[in-house]
Amino acid sequence: MTLTGRSLIAGQAVAGDGKTAYAFNPATNSQLEPGYTLLTEDQLKDATAAAAAAYPSFSTLDPETHARFLEAIAENIEAIGEELVTRAGLETGLPAARLQGERARTTGQLRLFAGVVRQGDFRGVRIDPALPDRAPLPRADIRQRQIPLGPVAVFGASNFPLAFSTAGGDTASALAAGCPVVFKAHNAHPGTGELVGQAIATAVRDTGLHPGVFSLIYGPGSSIGQALVADPAIKAVGFTGSQSAGIALMRTAAARPEPIPVYAEMSSLNPVFVFPGALEGDVDALARQYVTAVTGSSGQLCTSPGLLFAPAGAAGDAFAAAVGRAVSSCAGQTMLTAGIAGSWNAGAEALGSAENVSVVGQGAEGATKNAPAPAIFGTSVAEFVSNPVLHQEIFGAASLVIRYSTTEELVDAATRLEGQLTASLQLTEADYPAAAPLIPALEQKVGRIIVNGWPTGVEVGHAMVHGGPFPATSDTRTTSVGTLAINRFLRPVAYQNLPQELLPAPLQDPNPWRLNRRIDGVVHIAGAEEAATEKAEVNA
Amino acid sequence: MTLTGRSLIAGQAVAGDGKTAYAFNPATNSQLEPGYTLLTEDQLKDATAAAAAAYPSFSTLDPETHARFLEAIAENIEAIGEELVTRAGLETGLPAARLQGERARTTGQLRLFAGVVRQGDFRGVRIDPALPDRAPLPRADIRQRQIPLGPVAVFGASNFPLAFSTAGGDTASALAAGCPVVFKAHNAHPGTGELVGQAIATAVRDTGLHPGVFSLIYGPGSSIGQALVADPAIKAVGFTGSQSAGIALMRTAAARPEPIPVYAEMSSLNPVFVFPGALEGDVDALARQYVTAVTGSSGQLCTSPGLLFAPAGAAGDAFAAAVGRAVSSCAGQTMLTAGIAGSWNAGAEALGSAENVSVVGQGAEGATKNAPAPAIFGTSVAEFVSNPVLHQEIFGAASLVIRYSTTEELVDAATRLEGQLTASLQLTEADYPAAAPLIPALEQKVGRIIVNGWPTGVEVGHAMVHGGPFPATSDTRTTSVGTLAINRFLRPVAYQNLPQELLPAPLQDPNPWRLNRRIDGVVHIAGAEEAATEKAEVNA
Repeated sequence: MTLTGRSLIAGQAVAGDGKTAYAFNPATNSQLEPGYTLLTEDQLKDATAAAAAAYPSFSTLDPETHARFLEAIAENIEAIGEELVTRAGLETGLPAARLQGERARTTGQLRLFAGVVRQGDFRGVRIDPALPDRAPLPRADIRQRQIPLGPVAVFGASNFPLAFSTAGGDTASALAAGCPVVFKAHNAHPGTGELVGQAIATAVRDTGLHPGVFSLIYGPGSSIGQALVADPAIKAVGFTGSQSAGIALMRTAAARPEPIPVYAEMSSLNPVFVFPGALEGDVDALARQYVTAVTGSSGQLCTSPGLLFAPAGAAGDAFAAAVGRAVSSCAGQTMLTAGIAGSWNAGAEALGSAENVSVVGQGAEGATKNAPAPAIFGTSVAEFVSNPVLHQEIFGAASLVIRYSTTEELVDAATRLEGQLTASLQLTEADYPAAAPLIPALEQKVGRIIVNGWPTGVEVGHAMVHGGPFPATSDTRTTSVGTLAINRFLRPVAYQNLPQELLPAPLQDPNPWRLNRRIDGVVHIAGAEEAATEKAEVNA
Repeated sequence: MTLTGRSLIAGQAVAGDGKTAYAFNPATNSQLEPGYTLLTEDQLKDATAAAAAAYPSFSTLDPETHARFLEAIAENIEAIGEELVTRAGLETGLPAARLQGERARTTGQLRLFAGVVRQGDFRGVRIDPALPDRAPLPRADIRQRQIPLGPVAVFGASNFPLAFSTAGGDTASALAAGCPVVFKAHNAHPGTGELVGQAIATAVRDTGLHPGVFSLIYGPGSSIGQALVADPAIKAVGFTGSQSAGIALMRTAAARPEPIPVYAEMSSLNPVFVFPGALEGDVDALARQYVTAVTGSSGQLCTSPGLLFAPAGAAGDAFAAAVGRAVSSCAGQTMLTAGIAGSWNAGAEALGSAENVSVVGQGAEGATKNAPAPAIFGTSVAEFVSNPVLHQEIFGAASLVIRYSTTEELVDAATRLEGQLTASLQLTEADYPAAAPLIPALEQKVGRIIVNGWPTGVEVGHAMVHGGPFPATSDTRTTSVGTLAINRFLRPVAYQNLPQELLPAPLQDPNPWRLNRRIDGVVHIAGAEEAATEKAEVNA
């Protein structure tokens, strides 16, 4: 596929009237062709207007066409072939195997949402039938469904150029909800973005949808992003990235004449709590697992563990020594950009030079540019709770081992944490009584609690929560991974006493979309009554 | 019951260290005893701290005790007897019949939520079982549930001293979710608030709950409210009232170190669209219904119709004349406060003197104080779309009849409206083709669409939406009336690979709370498998 260096507005390649930007290969710091011409704010309006124009037809699409559209995006991404992995590797420094896995996750996610669209529970159908004879007043027929919010602005993450980017979780869940998407391309992987954007645009065209269902825009850093969020046509925002950028978008969205929801997934330290029983096993294996979670993908995962609480005493000392050995044998891997590597260096420097912080172990620098040596530091729980510097995320392969003496210290430390995406516990059955009081404390601080596992590797399923209290995310009521993510882009509307002819299809009596329905508060599974009747007839 | 004039903090009557405030009888402008001593911001902290202390036990209460608690509140409110209606009548000027109906709605709402708590779907249980043999990677057991957000600050409305106040919809849904409530008493009906607050506190005590589950605080107007919303212990806000007060709370909540959701129900014009067919019937009856909806409860309802679009031409002229006759025969009723009556006068004056606005009809002033004459004005659709003054809510018995010529004008006017709670259509079958394009336009503007009915009289059920786009509410993704309102106070948490011993009860394998569960994306009705098995055994 030929990269054009242009934005893709409602199916058309559009050259920007602004400057030209280039991707860089972070392994060599060399510039990658082609240049991407950046849109002006005026040009941006073409994309948002097209999205608004696409809303009426796309938001009411029949489920089967809607689901096939999502599947077509997945097929088109696969059809790009190795070119996608190659380009993404050049732009991000991520290894091919990781990118192949991420591609499978991206297409799997689109197909999972296709299933959600076919199944239809997200439409939230509720019917309270009329009670004409009720005293003192009759009740009218009232029906409720969830409708898509409107055009959604999505900002991709640098660290997942596929699964959290152009056709990533935010785009997939917004499109599944029936919302057109205007995607702000990430300037660190513009070519990857264009390849995927073309795959989406082709699916839009082949499915016969309004071309405004999807646009991919290249623009100057934060200014075009702010303009996009401020655009009156945009009704919600999905974002994955830094806390400062996320908070800036939240402010812009809240200051609009019509405020809109922002779903920003921002930062997380992902604490791990090691209980004494867990150190009675193979501490070298446990240490290696921890170091793998810290250093995998150069530590550039939202869920990399940045804190580990380990017991004081001899067993904890042995574990810390094992961690030191494990990280010493690691070499740095290319980070996503020179800027990110620079921030990592500054953060690791600040942490390493903080009072009462020691070095537990450090690996070697990698052979490429921007591949700093992974580092694990150590401190006490008393120091941790008193020094805010130790609560700051260092994006990359760094972590802090915190030694504690009592379970009370753990619970206290947990209550002092800011909001996080995850918390993990390493324990054995003997530790259950000690761990039990930590669980409710952690529920207040995180979106996901893990036992005897590591937070990296976020399963895309129905029960996943990739979210958590601020500042992990902007909105703790949601998740950005998993099928519940679709709820972010919906709102309820009630219909009172509408004749069948004016009711939208999902609410009509014959239930043409075969949806589960909550009738008078009780869930009725679609087709269950008919199935029961058929069964009874067969038995008779 | 003796009114103490004190706040009720975690079950204790507390005298405020601030000034003393009194209620006024709006029918006479006379002061009502007792005086209510106002809390300082320091004293407020006792209430929020108690709410935070109550959260761990209240948020994990077993469903049956939890449901009985809500039912006990309803019983205790009923047990107050006529004193409640009398005091509320003195403080609000609302007639006894209206208040009796509102009391029934309040207690019915509490019992409805008791049923929701017993049924348990709001807990949102999702289970993705482990797939240890999955390739290339096994899947861990992941379970999800919704947990209560934490202590909720609730601000009651002046116009529903029972159903949208101390034990109203926000309080009932927050308590049902498992959130302790700190209720800011409305200074216009402090005695009513105290009576109901005592009923709640008694239910807390009799159920054996932590006393911090509920506090009722009296404080100086907006300052204590801002302090309450800014308090770190508070995790969400429910509010019904003016747009300016609601927006002020939204700003405070967004500016916190940890932003929190604000559910503010603020203002709405509730447009009514009359189609030509509807004027072929009894236009006098239609006009009387409209005037009743405008003037009922002195027009002090969130859903009073402030706009009515009627066809131009002879039939429309006859309808407008009928409206004029109907409103001329109405007398003003006491409004809630002298301040509200003053605002109504100013708003009606501004509307009446706006360019190209005429008087369709006006009633007579009432016999009491603060009972201005209901007024209905008229203008053209062209004037309406061009003059922002005509889009402003006048809280009270005033409305604007807007004459239109084509359906296109109606759709255009609808797209220019701000967000509203409701829109209503009066039509016959012949009007369906003309009305059809209006429905999707209205879905973008309102939370509820009504055909051949009036927006007043908000049914409390499972399918109701009392919400809508900003500025009707602060958050279009929710409703403040009906069982869906409970979702406002919940957030999802995922549990990965937790042993049964550490899992919260709703997620344990034996399903001790008998909850419906979404397993691998498919809803399983509690007990349905067992029931099916039993049936098969009986048949065998």
